[in-house]
Amino acid sequence: MTKLQLKLLESLIYTKESETEKEMEVVQVLHMNGGIDETSYASNSLIQKKVISLTKHISEEAITNLYCSTLPRSLVIADLGCSSGPNTLFLVSELIKVVDKLRQKLGHESPEYQVFLNDLPGNDFNTIFKSLPNFQKQMSYQMGPGIGPCLFSGTPGSFYGRLFPSKSLHFVHSSYSLQWLSQVPEGLDNNKGNIYMACTSPPDVLRAYYEQYQRDFSMFLKCRAEELVAGGGMVLTFLGRRSEDPSSRECCYIWELLAMALNDMVSEGLIDEDKMNSFNIPQYTPSPLEVKTEVSKEGYFSIDHLEVSAIKWNGFDDEFNASNAFSDDGYKVAKYMRAVAESMLVSHFGDAIIDEVFLRYRKIIADRISKENCQFINVTISITKIG
Amino acid sequence: MTKLQLKLLESLIYTKESETEKEMEVVQVLHMNGGIDETSYASNSLIQKKVISLTKHISEEAITNLYCSTLPRSLVIADLGCSSGPNTLFLVSELIKVVDKLRQKLGHESPEYQVFLNDLPGNDFNTIFKSLPNFQKQMSYQMGPGIGPCLFSGTPGSFYGRLFPSKSLHFVHSSYSLQWLSQVPEGLDNNKGNIYMACTSPPDVLRAYYEQYQRDFSMFLKCRAEELVAGGGMVLTFLGRRSEDPSSRECCYIWELLAMALNDMVSEGLIDEDKMNSFNIPQYTPSPLEVKTEVSKEGYFSIDHLEVSAIKWNGFDDEFNASNAFSDDGYKVAKYMRAVAESMLVSHFGDAIIDEVFLRYRKIIADRISKENCQFINVTISITKIG
Repeated sequence: MTKLQLKLLESLIYTKESETEKEMEVVQVLHMNGGIDETSYASNSLIQKKVISLTKHISEEAITNLYCSTLPRSLVIADLGCSSGPNTLFLVSELIKVVDKLRQKLGHESPEYQVFLNDLPGNDFNTIFKSLPNFQKQMSYQMGPGIGPCLFSGTPGSFYGRLFPSKSLHFVHSSYSLQWLSQVPEGLDNNKGNIYMACTSPPDVLRAYYEQYQRDFSMFLKCRAEELVAGGGMVLTFLGRRSEDPSSRECCYIWELLAMALNDMVSEGLIDEDKMNSFNIPQYTPSPLEVKTEVSKEGYFSIDHLEVSAIKWNGFDDEFNASNAFSDDGYKVAKYMRAVAESMLVSHFGDAIIDEVFLRYRKIIADRISKENCQFINVTISITKIG
Repeated sequence: MTKLQLKLLESLIYTKESETEKEMEVVQVLHMNGGIDETSYASNSLIQKKVISLTKHISEEAITNLYCSTLPRSLVIADLGCSSGPNTLFLVSELIKVVDKLRQKLGHESPEYQVFLNDLPGNDFNTIFKSLPNFQKQMSYQMGPGIGPCLFSGTPGSFYGRLFPSKSLHFVHSSYSLQWLSQVPEGLDNNKGNIYMACTSPPDVLRAYYEQYQRDFSMFLKCRAEELVAGGGMVLTFLGRRSEDPSSRECCYIWELLAMALNDMVSEGLIDEDKMNSFNIPQYTPSPLEVKTEVSKEGYFSIDHLEVSAIKWNGFDDEFNASNAFSDDGYKVAKYMRAVAESMLVSHFGDAIIDEVFLRYRKIIADRISKENCQFINVTISITKIG
């Protein structure tokens, strides 16, 4: 019996005793890998950082308009789906720098900054919090003595519910988080062999995903509309797609390759077929039109800006060129997908299969990335709360 | 070579490489033991819970007055030094219940509740945050459908600095936290053989401790005065003393017994004498008069209530009776003192000696507790911000 088979046997015994058949509770389960070690999200979030950089000009423009139109004494910023790692504080510090330059130019005293970092309760807030004293020291050194206090809090909870008091926020930022749904949609029984929307998914599966997205994003907008002051702004970046076809390869391919790895293991008897058939990723990658439609329908916000950008799986943002594909790209991409997806896979399949899944996933990705132009598509929208 | 000697050798090698000679940074080092296992603060905080219960009527009266006089739409409460365990949410939920009953009686709509849980950045916020979804479910089940949203955030940082925006808080609670100083006072070189104020401490040591307390508590009052709205309230419980003598046994005895355990190990060559002489606990246990004097001097707050209470080391609050002393009291007391003091001891002495220190400490406590009426004294003050 190999080591893997032994581990699988253990996990089968364990599975019988636990309640893994229950619908996965996203709020309790989903989190990026914590800590700072090799498999952590903190060490594998370069793509997400590049996306924040790529869309930073939109946030900077939005906070400039916001500051000039409201001139708050305390400026309250929330980052929703902040995760835990170098990205968590990166954008917020950039925004504070923009406001500080602006208030100096306008000859105003510095506002106080209150920053809320939000993510699900399973997120590793301890690691963020331990890094804050040094971050705050650095900030005040860089910004000089005129800067007001920068006050940080962490807010655990789903952004598909209320997180903050009414009319208490000025600016909300969220990047690469809103594609996560509040739950796996119901009615995906026919999505056998797939783990997300795929070209072979039947229409009722695509509809179930879209309706869940509509319910969730509508709830998100309603909650934030209550929490933002009039004139308050939001800049939201989704992992999305250009095409109006929800099963388009540009958004589903990365998960299709993971499904391939899992299906290989099903065919070898390493994963139970029923388990595979009942696993679906709680994500929806909307098109620009779908985002715009939902915002317009709810009517709380005016749309200032809508932009689509792309970034290659290996982190390069230039055009595809075979010489840009490095031999370790498969390794890199599988590693950051692991930091993102491990908590869900472990919750559903147990942890015995994880190393093997990602070994296979890595090989599949390495093969595709060397032959094709594999990209993530980002949809960014900047909106303002109507007074 | 025994296992302990081996561990000590390791720790000596380690110590040379690290920077343990540096002044202990309380903000970075001090935290109650995290997690929920046997040595955690969560499993060893019954005394602190009893103190909260013992002083709850003062907090309830204060929040009743506050609610009736301000009727806020969003009621913002901060618990400073919340630690991590069953106490963290206990008082806050009691306060919310009081306000909810009151607003029903007055026929008002429920306010929204925003609760900030503060502690130093090393506190185990992850464990609190993971317990929040269930706590919130329970709360809304108990309170019925009329209750407004209860929104929780964690705020890491020292309460001897700014934590919240100006005029943003209604009510501040802190129990068994404000006796911790922001740093070990400077000028304790003459406190050899002691680890806290003791009857053998020279006057300049007592003065250094008192002055540090004055600086710290004055800074605390200044910061909170900025953060509270006019009419906002604070209820603060210190581990304190009745006597005006700062080296009085009633506040220092528990640390004197720990010093005895450490000194025993010094005399056996298990702890370096210089290391022992440079270790001092960053704590000050004030008298009611000292607390009152500082509040009056700063002038931001009016004093509504000042109360002294006592609780026995073993958690009983009745009079001393030899039959109340149980054989495992030494074990219990040493365990909760470990949950409180371990982070400081490890930071100064390394972790090799810890088990041995607490084994000895436990025996010493068991002996004393069976013969004497050993109590903690609590000083509670309720104050209101002058408009």
